[in-house]
Amino acid sequence: MGKKLYHGAAWYPELWSENVLEEDIKQMKEAGINVARIGEFAWSSMEPHEGRIDLSFFVQIIERLYENGIDTVMCTPTATPPIWFSHGHPERMYVDAELRTMGHGSRQHACTNHPYFREKAAVVTEHIARAIGSLPGLIGWQLDNEFKAHVSECMCRTCLTQWQQWLEQRYTTVERLNEAWGTQIWSEYYHRFDQVPQPGPAPFLHNSSLKTMYQQFSMEKIAEFAYEQAAIIRRYSSAPVTHNSSMAFSVDNERLFRSLDFASFDTYATTDHVPAFLINNDLFRNFKRGRDYWIMETSPSFAASLTSYAKPHPSGYLRAEAAASYALGAEAFCYWLWRQQRAGCEQPHGSVLSAWGKPTVGYPSVLEVEQTRQELENVILSTRPAQAETALTYSDRAKAFLKTEPHRKVNHRGLMTDFYTRILNTGIHRDVVPEGSELDGYKLLFTPFLPYITAEYIDRAIELVEKGSIWIVGPLTGGRTEEHTIHTDSALGSLEQLAGVEAVYTFPMDGSGTIGHAFGHSAPLSLWSSVFMLEGATAVGTMEGGLTPELAWITEKRHGKGKIVMLGSMPAGEDGQRLIEALITHYADEARVTLRSDVTPGTIFAPRSGDGFEVWVIVNMDGNGGSVTITQAAVDQFTKEPDRCRHTAGTWQI
Amino acid sequence: MGKKLYHGAAWYPELWSENVLEEDIKQMKEAGINVARIGEFAWSSMEPHEGRIDLSFFVQIIERLYENGIDTVMCTPTATPPIWFSHGHPERMYVDAELRTMGHGSRQHACTNHPYFREKAAVVTEHIARAIGSLPGLIGWQLDNEFKAHVSECMCRTCLTQWQQWLEQRYTTVERLNEAWGTQIWSEYYHRFDQVPQPGPAPFLHNSSLKTMYQQFSMEKIAEFAYEQAAIIRRYSSAPVTHNSSMAFSVDNERLFRSLDFASFDTYATTDHVPAFLINNDLFRNFKRGRDYWIMETSPSFAASLTSYAKPHPSGYLRAEAAASYALGAEAFCYWLWRQQRAGCEQPHGSVLSAWGKPTVGYPSVLEVEQTRQELENVILSTRPAQAETALTYSDRAKAFLKTEPHRKVNHRGLMTDFYTRILNTGIHRDVVPEGSELDGYKLLFTPFLPYITAEYIDRAIELVEKGSIWIVGPLTGGRTEEHTIHTDSALGSLEQLAGVEAVYTFPMDGSGTIGHAFGHSAPLSLWSSVFMLEGATAVGTMEGGLTPELAWITEKRHGKGKIVMLGSMPAGEDGQRLIEALITHYADEARVTLRSDVTPGTIFAPRSGDGFEVWVIVNMDGNGGSVTITQAAVDQFTKEPDRCRHTAGTWQI
Amino acid sequence: MGKKLYHGAAWYPELWSENVLEEDIKQMKEAGINVARIGEFAWSSMEPHEGRIDLSFFVQIIERLYENGIDTVMCTPTATPPIWFSHGHPERMYVDAELRTMGHGSRQHACTNHPYFREKAAVVTEHIARAIGSLPGLIGWQLDNEFKAHVSECMCRTCLTQWQQWLEQRYTTVERLNEAWGTQIWSEYYHRFDQVPQPGPAPFLHNSSLKTMYQQFSMEKIAEFAYEQAAIIRRYSSAPVTHNSSMAFSVDNERLFRSLDFASFDTYATTDHVPAFLINNDLFRNFKRGRDYWIMETSPSFAASLTSYAKPHPSGYLRAEAAASYALGAEAFCYWLWRQQRAGCEQPHGSVLSAWGKPTVGYPSVLEVEQTRQELENVILSTRPAQAETALTYSDRAKAFLKTEPHRKVNHRGLMTDFYTRILNTGIHRDVVPEGSELDGYKLLFTPFLPYITAEYIDRAIELVEKGSIWIVGPLTGGRTEEHTIHTDSALGSLEQLAGVEAVYTFPMDGSGTIGHAFGHSAPLSLWSSVFMLEGATAVGTMEGGLTPELAWITEKRHGKGKIVMLGSMPAGEDGQRLIEALITHYADEARVTLRSDVTPGTIFAPRSGDGFEVWVIVNMDGNGGSVTITQAAVDQFTKEPDRCRHTAGTWQI
Repeated sequence: MGKKLYHGAAWYPELWSENVLEEDIKQMKEAGINVARIGEFAWSSMEPHEGRIDLSFFVQIIERLYENGIDTVMCTPTATPPIWFSHGHPERMYVDAELRTMGHGSRQHACTNHPYFREKAAVVTEHIARAIGSLPGLIGWQLDNEFKAHVSECMCRTCLTQWQQWLEQRYTTVERLNEAWGTQIWSEYYHRFDQVPQPGPAPFLHNSSLKTMYQQFSMEKIAEFAYEQAAIIRRYSSAPVTHNSSMAFSVDNERLFRSLDFASFDTYATTDHVPAFLINNDLFRNFKRGRDYWIMETSPSFAASLTSYAKPHPSGYLRAEAAASYALGAEAFCYWLWRQQRAGCEQPHGSVLSAWGKPTVGYPSVLEVEQTRQELENVILSTRPAQAETALTYSDRAKAFLKTEPHRKVNHRGLMTDFYTRILNTGIHRDVVPEGSELDGYKLLFTPFLPYITAEYIDRAIELVEKGSIWIVGPLTGGRTEEHTIHTDSALGSLEQLAGVEAVYTFPMDGSGTIGHAFGHSAPLSLWSSVFMLEGATAVGTMEGGLTPELAWITEKRHGKGKIVMLGSMPAGEDGQRLIEALITHYADEARVTLRSDVTPGTIFAPRSGDGFEVWVIVNMDGNGGSVTITQAAVDQFTKEPDRCRHTAGTWQI
Repeated sequence: MGKKLYHGAAWYPELWSENVLEEDIKQMKEAGINVARIGEFAWSSMEPHEGRIDLSFFVQIIERLYENGIDTVMCTPTATPPIWFSHGHPERMYVDAELRTMGHGSRQHACTNHPYFREKAAVVTEHIARAIGSLPGLIGWQLDNEFKAHVSECMCRTCLTQWQQWLEQRYTTVERLNEAWGTQIWSEYYHRFDQVPQPGPAPFLHNSSLKTMYQQFSMEKIAEFAYEQAAIIRRYSSAPVTHNSSMAFSVDNERLFRSLDFASFDTYATTDHVPAFLINNDLFRNFKRGRDYWIMETSPSFAASLTSYAKPHPSGYLRAEAAASYALGAEAFCYWLWRQQRAGCEQPHGSVLSAWGKPTVGYPSVLEVEQTRQELENVILSTRPAQAETALTYSDRAKAFLKTEPHRKVNHRGLMTDFYTRILNTGIHRDVVPEGSELDGYKLLFTPFLPYITAEYIDRAIELVEKGSIWIVGPLTGGRTEEHTIHTDSALGSLEQLAGVEAVYTFPMDGSGTIGHAFGHSAPLSLWSSVFMLEGATAVGTMEGGLTPELAWITEKRHGKGKIVMLGSMPAGEDGQRLIEALITHYADEARVTLRSDVTPGTIFAPRSGDGFEVWVIVNMDGNGGSVTITQAAVDQFTKEPDRCRHTAGTWQI
Repeated sequence: MGKKLYHGAAWYPELWSENVLEEDIKQMKEAGINVARIGEFAWSSMEPHEGRIDLSFFVQIIERLYENGIDTVMCTPTATPPIWFSHGHPERMYVDAELRTMGHGSRQHACTNHPYFREKAAVVTEHIARAIGSLPGLIGWQLDNEFKAHVSECMCRTCLTQWQQWLEQRYTTVERLNEAWGTQIWSEYYHRFDQVPQPGPAPFLHNSSLKTMYQQFSMEKIAEFAYEQAAIIRRYSSAPVTHNSSMAFSVDNERLFRSLDFASFDTYATTDHVPAFLINNDLFRNFKRGRDYWIMETSPSFAASLTSYAKPHPSGYLRAEAAASYALGAEAFCYWLWRQQRAGCEQPHGSVLSAWGKPTVGYPSVLEVEQTRQELENVILSTRPAQAETALTYSDRAKAFLKTEPHRKVNHRGLMTDFYTRILNTGIHRDVVPEGSELDGYKLLFTPFLPYITAEYIDRAIELVEKGSIWIVGPLTGGRTEEHTIHTDSALGSLEQLAGVEAVYTFPMDGSGTIGHAFGHSAPLSLWSSVFMLEGATAVGTMEGGLTPELAWITEKRHGKGKIVMLGSMPAGEDGQRLIEALITHYADEARVTLRSDVTPGTIFAPRSGDGFEVWVIVNMDGNGGSVTITQAAVDQFTKEPDRCRHTAGTWQI
């Protein structure tokens, strides 16, 4: 890896006959596919009978691909244990929140914490790693498939025991757990760890700590499984290991990728949700800093299954996606899937070839992507993505908090994508950074929707502020402890003193008639909000109407060479969007953020740094064209003409 | 049967005291009720204790009805096994998709595949048949009640075993099943039939073959039960056997009625859904060709239960329904129910008499129906329904396919009724014919929404085409195999060559911006669609915008003396409706369909053939009146005046 | 009790440290809190290990409150059994309608009918009563918390057995049950009581009698539990016992309060639903006649939990609520809760102090309430609520009937609140009276939405009518028997003869095109309706269109000195509201109702009687001000000026 741009597709050779495979490889070469992802779900082909494992088919496939110039990402097949694992063993299966035990026939039906699952998964993975780990053409590994995409926290008896052990490890004594969770409330109080239940059926809500910690337990266990699996592979292979993840799954991606070698994601956003596509790139680039990420799955045309289908991509959009991804740091742009399934439940899903081996409606787009890949390869390989000056903090732990406490059905991913869209619209280049990331180099840091903020994070942010950056905190940030309880010293804990405010009241703004003013804009305030009395800070956002017209909802305070800005509420509607964009622009100006442009909406620029030069890749995403001012002397990489004027991007032009 | 038009009602004499029964019979005569349907649900009255069966009450009732000029349809009571069957025997009960075991107290609570159910059902039915089978006045039998109306596929352990046996019978070896279903996908692969699960709880979707075959298994088993029951009855009775079915239930009606003697259905459509009422008549007439069907249940006023009620019929509508039914081939028009229930869960349901024995709000309509019945009886009995020249193929197997694969929540019944409405609106008389029907005599054949099309059906259709008919195929037709997988030779299998097209792409049109043009109309295209390259065919429908503007979505090709028309997509909205109606008219003209009229919308004509003469019964269904041109010399049956002018139908006038 | 107006808050001292408690008591005094409600949910603090009960903490808290001038309402903690009760004992837990067994961690997780629950509840309550029953400052008891708020009818095995015993007690022989319920229908018929099931999972609806009786069983059992608990307390304490109930819970409040000493309720209506707040006051005042009720819980600002939040009260609204409540007969106005929870699942809920001990956004309103309480205390203590002349009958048994038979999702509470709003809007003072209440003194009696009307109720109403009152019956009243079956003599049983009508038809009016005319207004008729032929009555409401234009939907008939008015249907929409208000005003005029005013909408008056004088407390609820004409010489209690003019109420002014 690292020596080319990859253009790939998921391939299931175990499902097809020899003549189809031959045709497939021939057509892959014609379509410019240079990497295939294989092995996913193939456990029953590899180990049809328990203990009888034969990988010769896959060895031969990888060799054959290699001979044809196609590299391989090998997957472990652990998302789909065979019937010999499932049949007659309900105790090994995933149990959902309604306590329904899953059966065989779909995927993710096994409890990934069950010791027997772990054992059999280790065995098959070891066999695979040994057989395949050093084959030429094997360039990477993918563990399992989309952890926790269809399931979330398992409620089986195995998980109950492990949960109780996990709690014992975390809290040492049950008294500490009782204290941390405040379990005297509603007489929840436990005398022994083995009394602590899973958050199963109950007449009303469970304790927030129980709910959030159970999610944390689940996310740690799946990361642990990934670690175990990666460790096995590393004994036999030097190829890097990843997992195809997503913001949408019930995993802590930061925790998960800590033990993996590179990040990758799957995305099926339609053209109606361009920011939902882009945020992945800006986020996954930052899970493994300095290491390119992969788009492991996206449709060449549309996602579909027996029970749903998405709007197909219009002409040119796939190329725009690929160009944007490569430019934003992706090493690979891969399809799900190469050949349409003939059976199962995803037959309608968009593919490169049809089940009968003909180009699909997405095929012309695939050729465009390949052309783009070739055009961009040199410039991409000779540069690295520029670090943004603006960072938006992302946390899957926060996602868990908001799943426990959705207030009024708020959804972490939705909130984050909306906030991200506000930044995107200002033309400022941005990193979306995991909670635990280094913050060096960011002039502007946004930390919204992070109910629990660690002391360590605050330290990093404050260090940044002291050096001159602006830190914008909120909304919904800081009001909860690590255990998902409420602070008992102040609304927002230590944040308040740092920000020079007292968060006098916290309450839901919706329907309260409160209008927020700031940066020359006004909008009704919404969401669970904090309102501030100044204790050293300056009021930037004021209120009219509602219950607290005398207080502030945005404040700022100098700290060291920088500034801490508290954003207590969320202005709603289109007026609210404009207000937030004005806030972003205001502080970007003040922080002297330069990695920005005047790109027209629908167009993005992706800045990259070479050895003594900079490159901007400009991509129009909405098919309407757009423009951007290049303020420095520049050379158009395609025309090789010097260019310092206003550049008008054509439709899907790069 | 066959000697009069019946006007009937469901009656539950076992629920009422002697003086009520006497009053009921008296009032039935006054209202013109000449057939009563009894015995449904009365198992506990017939066999209060297991094995102690006494049918004297029902014998006496039938004799008494007969003495009063009222015939009887006797029902088997198997939809409601008594408490001695249910109590303490969860293993005998129906288990739903959430694996909840049903309890006693409603209906259809038993698993109809449980051997003990079959045994006890056989015993009670044999007793009934023996006691009642040759009574004068006993003119027919109804098995059970509305098979699979409240339930669908049972998930109990008995069904699991029988399902595995059924699979073994179908596939002989498990390897054939694996191959047919493509079970190497997701490691579903089975080594033995006893490993194949029911499609129970799973994290994501089950294999389409599993889902569809489980429905097919269930539909065959209920037909098998019907056959067993009918065979018992036939040993003791020559009266014909039916079942009160519906397009809405989880049964394969064609398969079901194969072993029964005449077809019947229940319908509760309101005036807002006239085509939903009419389609039943045009369909059930064709389940037992040459044999009149019955409307076994309809409300004199409105359907209702404890938890719902429908809009009551306006004055005159019931009479229009009855006239339309008799004219379209119904021998009987029967109410549910005669006397309002005083207990249970359907007390609010519309009836002829109230629980206190008075006429209900529907009663005046019942008198109108009786008047209409008398007016029509002679003309109906001296004629037979004319075979239409236009046929619309109906398949409950297709219903199962679309339940497995609803794309975007499409619903077979809804799609079919909409397409039927298009034909209805053109004024063309039509048959809705079961998939396996003979097609002789049809000039125009529509085959939409049939994902799997048998070779045998294609042969029949092609034979028709060769003789000069036009066959219009699609949308959603032909893209799936018998096993609910995808073809691997082409999108639509052998259809393409016959139709002279290549279905180049199949994809969802909604939101793709594709406008279809044809027959002078334009509309956005929708649904999962196929688009065609011409391989001998001519383009009739072209596209603008979207992904495939160069291809065709409607094609036609001469074949023999006729034509095959491929309809690849569904134009949406009111423009789309107009386009489809234009298509129908266009091909009806071309096929020289003559059994049609210029009836104004809301009015229908029902053509019947006598010995050397034709009769058109004209019924206005919407209460607004309407008109139709009688193009031949005709005599008004009521005025006996010659009539060759434009006939203006009055409100509800026949 | 009875010597002051209380202003209280729920307090959970067991959850907080000593220094917090000290601060809390200090702040309570500052905020004017003179009563604390404690002990709710504290079972695990009181009896951490089974059988080891220590109440010294609570004794000390009550003494300490008393020393600080704060009285106590002590709660029994039975809504939340500790882990030693729950853990490993699924058979003791509540089972819901889907047969899911509840786990520990929320509340109401125990089956309140389980003998072990009853036993342990008795033990802990006896200990509490003994330790606390005669403490100074202990002024009242609250049993448990919000019975059946999160749960309804338990479906566990214990309940099954008790249900069958309850049935045996009610019906003596199973044959009587069969007859009463009409169980020959659908072969439900039972041979023994131990065969009668709970209304669990079924393919379609259960028998209405089964469903309604199971609710009645459940409501009686919870009242029985309350009685057992109250009896224990009374052995050790003379302080009165209540329960914090609601119209929304699955209890029969009239039955429940029969064995308790005073009534109380919880309410969380927002300003958008003022009538939903007021109806509670007008109803709960009448559960224990002559005894003031308590508002045991309301939020100082807004209700919220992890998964929801309500709109916060605008400034001044809480004060209006408190003034209205005190004036309408409340002795206490209490908050949930004093200090925001730091843990659990209700942390976001509005409170008086925050979790960190600071005033919340609701605090200023609390101070206003205290000011109002002080201003009103003398006038309230020297007067009693005047009995209204207009009564609206309320029945939780009717609520159960409508839960069994919701027709089209109608909801008893919604229907009742809407009808109440119609009366409220006319400016007529009203009592909402339980079904079993004495009716003496009412000139105008409304009895809508009472499907089953007892003979005894009819006797009381007729007695009233004979003395000169007007009784308005319907809609939805009288059409069902005690067993939730249909009458077999006439639609509405004995009502018809009394009212001089025959209810010729009963049917759903929605969509039937029927327009009702009456009192100069017209509106489309809706709901399941009865239409009348006159048998001595006069038509007051006539119909146009629909199926029954010749009949009446409102009739009246003189009876004795009064009148019986039948209201057969519900006029819909805003026109319908106006029509009903016209009806109310018309009959209030005719009945010479004088306890009424011309208050403008949004303002209410609460009349009270002193020793030789009357007081009207006037409260504007909507913040827009309002006016009312004082027709007698009056003195403004605050200005002490004589006042006989049109009084303009200021915003929230009393």
